[in-house]
Amino acid sequence: MNKQKLTFYFDYISPYSYLAWHKISILCEKYNLELKPEPIVFGAILTKLENKGPAEVEPKRIFLYKDVLRSANKDNILLKFPPAHPFNPLLALRATCIMEKTTNYNNFITDIFDACWKEGKDISNIELIDSFLKKYNINNGIEFCNNDEIKNILKEKTTLAINNGIFGVPSMLINEELFWGNDRFDFLENYILGKDPINLEEEKN
Amino acid sequence: MNKQKLTFYFDYISPYSYLAWHKISILCEKYNLELKPEPIVFGAILTKLENKGPAEVEPKRIFLYKDVLRSANKDNILLKFPPAHPFNPLLALRATCIMEKTTNYNNFITDIFDACWKEGKDISNIELIDSFLKKYNINNGIEFCNNDEIKNILKEKTTLAINNGIFGVPSMLINEELFWGNDRFDFLENYILGKDPINLEEEKN
Repeated sequence: MNKQKLTFYFDYISPYSYLAWHKISILCEKYNLELKPEPIVFGAILTKLENKGPAEVEPKRIFLYKDVLRSANKDNILLKFPPAHPFNPLLALRATCIMEKTTNYNNFITDIFDACWKEGKDISNIELIDSFLKKYNINNGIEFCNNDEIKNILKEKTTLAINNGIFGVPSMLINEELFWGNDRFDFLENYILGKDPINLEEEKN
Repeated sequence: MNKQKLTFYFDYISPYSYLAWHKISILCEKYNLELKPEPIVFGAILTKLENKGPAEVEPKRIFLYKDVLRSANKDNILLKFPPAHPFNPLLALRATCIMEKTTNYNNFITDIFDACWKEGKDISNIELIDSFLKKYNINNGIEFCNNDEIKNILKEKTTLAINNGIFGVPSMLINEELFWGNDRFDFLENYILGKDPINLEEEKN
């Protein structure tokens, strides 16, 4: 029997994506779901929707950094801020696209997320990304990242995400039902269990 | 002994403000806090911060309406959408400013929130707002609402809120510490209990 698919849209720039990444694999194992991680460019989504990122609104930025620490504490996940934020996540996202067809795809994503948000490293650094690619035997990876082919794969993923109604990260999509945010795992779990009040309302009609 | 003050910033336009309003009075009673409700114009805050409202980003709007229903279900709070959203909340907010100095201030706010989000009524309707003002013996209330004095009170409250770092509703402010969102009551409660991980970090240093 085919497993039900859960798509996880993320950008390394988002600390809430980091927190959600560590929980989503546990959830997918618990409910025997196929986890499909999709790297996307959050900045491109904001541009397309003519919206501002949370870190671009000054008072919101101050609040959200505290909120990230509180959220990490709540979930017992280690968190350390990278040297600068926002940073340029494109190289890391493109490197992730290179890894997609390999068996180490999920491990690579964990490595990059942890380097950035657990160890507080600068993942816009070329040598750092190269070292993770080499760990999984991808040589000349940085060269690939600069190829139009890989650039276009990331662009297409982002466009497809927008077409699927994605407006922020992290987002979880299952059966075309969208759950946005690290703080919506309870609603997602209700949905998986057939206890989503939205569906229950529809059934009544 | 003076009670500690908790300021609750809200706009009737926000269904999350409605959900939070019903919980905040319970929380304030539990911890013996003085609840200070502050009506503000969310639209004016967005304009000032050059930000978009959640309902102005189309895919987000669709998600958020479902999220509101899920949030109401989680908290066991009845919810019915008003005939149109977004709507013009200015009359209702100005009427609230009239009630501020009376003993029925909190009851009036509950009435308007419930009319809008529990009974699904149109609170931009003049007769409806007038009927609630008359319930508390305010005659000529609609006339007051059109006075510059009341209009300026609401404007000042909104400006003060922005100066206090408010960027969205509902927001809860206690000892200059800000908690934004109906989904952040656990973090607020941790703070009240002296268990906020942010403060614990500072104490260590």
